[in-house]
Amino acid sequence: MTSQAALRAIVAVDPAAGAAARARIDALTKPLGSLGRIEELAVRLSAMAGRVVDRPYDRAAILIGAGDHGVTAEGVSAYPAEVTPQMIGAFLGGHAAINAFARTVGADVFVANFGVRAGLGHHDRLIDVLVGHGTANFARGDAMRADDVELALAAGIAALDDVLGRAPYDTIALGEMGIGNTTSAAAIVAACTGESAGAVTGRGTGVDDATFARKRDVVASAVAPLEGAGWERIAAAVGGFEIVGLAGAILGAASRRLPILLDGFIVSAAALLAQRIAPASLGYCIAAHRSREPGHAVALEALGLRPLLDLDLRLGEGSGAALALPLVEAATRMIAEMKTFAEAGVSEKSES
Amino acid sequence: MTSQAALRAIVAVDPAAGAAARARIDALTKPLGSLGRIEELAVRLSAMAGRVVDRPYDRAAILIGAGDHGVTAEGVSAYPAEVTPQMIGAFLGGHAAINAFARTVGADVFVANFGVRAGLGHHDRLIDVLVGHGTANFARGDAMRADDVELALAAGIAALDDVLGRAPYDTIALGEMGIGNTTSAAAIVAACTGESAGAVTGRGTGVDDATFARKRDVVASAVAPLEGAGWERIAAAVGGFEIVGLAGAILGAASRRLPILLDGFIVSAAALLAQRIAPASLGYCIAAHRSREPGHAVALEALGLRPLLDLDLRLGEGSGAALALPLVEAATRMIAEMKTFAEAGVSEKSES
Repeated sequence: MTSQAALRAIVAVDPAAGAAARARIDALTKPLGSLGRIEELAVRLSAMAGRVVDRPYDRAAILIGAGDHGVTAEGVSAYPAEVTPQMIGAFLGGHAAINAFARTVGADVFVANFGVRAGLGHHDRLIDVLVGHGTANFARGDAMRADDVELALAAGIAALDDVLGRAPYDTIALGEMGIGNTTSAAAIVAACTGESAGAVTGRGTGVDDATFARKRDVVASAVAPLEGAGWERIAAAVGGFEIVGLAGAILGAASRRLPILLDGFIVSAAALLAQRIAPASLGYCIAAHRSREPGHAVALEALGLRPLLDLDLRLGEGSGAALALPLVEAATRMIAEMKTFAEAGVSEKSES
Repeated sequence: MTSQAALRAIVAVDPAAGAAARARIDALTKPLGSLGRIEELAVRLSAMAGRVVDRPYDRAAILIGAGDHGVTAEGVSAYPAEVTPQMIGAFLGGHAAINAFARTVGADVFVANFGVRAGLGHHDRLIDVLVGHGTANFARGDAMRADDVELALAAGIAALDDVLGRAPYDTIALGEMGIGNTTSAAAIVAACTGESAGAVTGRGTGVDDATFARKRDVVASAVAPLEGAGWERIAAAVGGFEIVGLAGAILGAASRRLPILLDGFIVSAAALLAQRIAPASLGYCIAAHRSREPGHAVALEALGLRPLLDLDLRLGEGSGAALALPLVEAATRMIAEMKTFAEAGVSEKSES
């Protein structure tokens, strides 16, 4: 699908389908409202689908967007940039955290290479949608050209097309890998929300005090000229290939009315860009968890999303999104497989 | 196993195994501490097992303890007592919420009949450990005889033995069904913790104001004479067959060093009894979620357990425990299947 076709295909979620789902849920054999947020999720999933969900969503794909960041030259990360391809090797080899979690929840893991500096070779689960070998250092100029923003967005849509060409996945979980990408995400979130660099910059993978101070200064300097800027300018100035690519994947999934589980801080930054591009895309986004990275709460607040899990995670890779997948499946099985009081012959609440 | 044998077999969890697990987790290919509560869980599961967990826990049983409550004669519940056997029919038929969630997480559902008033017939997944056909109305005298307390405890141990005789389950999730059992649980929690009836009594399945006031009064009156009472007296006075039975199941699982996922308020009341009987049993208990029933927070505080999920659930049946099972499996897969930096050839954090 082209970017333009994807954007044209995005429709708002359907509140009537949500209301019909609510009516069915209220008739199921359980006290009214007793499944709390699982019920809310089933209502939202029905609104996304445009009809009351009537089958389990048990086929999930986890798409990890990967890219390198020129801003690592400023010394903003605890890990060297060579870790990006090393961790991708772990994802494809099946021995990283995201693989352990994906096996737990029965999901398939794919890596989309939007912008890794090193060559990655070939692998069945590695989707080559390379825009460039790492962004430029945004402390010294724009991270990417305006053309690259368009290319990265299209690459995200293409990566999602590739995934959906392999199996009829019903849920998309998004994750990321890219040394330095919390610095880019912090700048995007600050620019999109108007919050200060101090409020959105965290310790990422665990930087020390000096690195943390440097990181915050880099974000503050980069964001200062972006006041009132549009999404294209923000993306070009401080974006990452994988972050813009993930925004494209969100648009692609929304255009197909698929639920999108957002992982942590970096994927939420991508969702903020996607929302600016196509506001209706937000209706398909589900916040999987609240990470310990401080800017994540800022991004979730701006998106108006309440996370499902709160497990003190701050890994990325899609790890939090993977752990929330069973909640999505549980919500669909609740509404599709439970019987109503009438169907089951169970006595209803007595009026008193 | 007899009650005495189970009690003798309960050993404290092993902090050395927990420390060894922590050392391995800290060497895995991820920033230190970045999987937060999943890491804590892997440490606890290793301490329970007495060695670093080295295989996925992917075989879970959900055991639902069922019983009826004479106190329903006081008009403390929104649903008629006939709902207990009707819902058991739904569990065995596979179309209740717990079944939808069990299918999501790949767990097997069993019902232990500790004290349902009606006859239930036979079913492969129905474990007959009947102590009596419903407790007596504890607003008018003791809920059960002292002998029945011992029988219910032994019945819980026997029910767990039965489950473990069917497959080598590595995780036990406990749930319950019994119209009126939040009233019994409230009285148990108040008596065990010294909290007031007002602090532990909630609306259960959703009672109206008048019923709620009646329920609170019933709890307050029943708890008043129990100040300083031991667990046998509390169980006899205000217990339920399924609640004491679930305490027995906790002791049985702890004696086999198995992790026990506690569902909500009622199962937490059982855990408080189990803790009084054998304090070391608490080391094997994991709080799955925080329910909306106010007494649950009181019970969790007394147990010193921090719940994994917070999804506004208040259904029971083991529904919250089922939804937390993937977190247990994820923790075991993390520690058993992830590689260390050295094993994976990934660069470690640079010293700065």
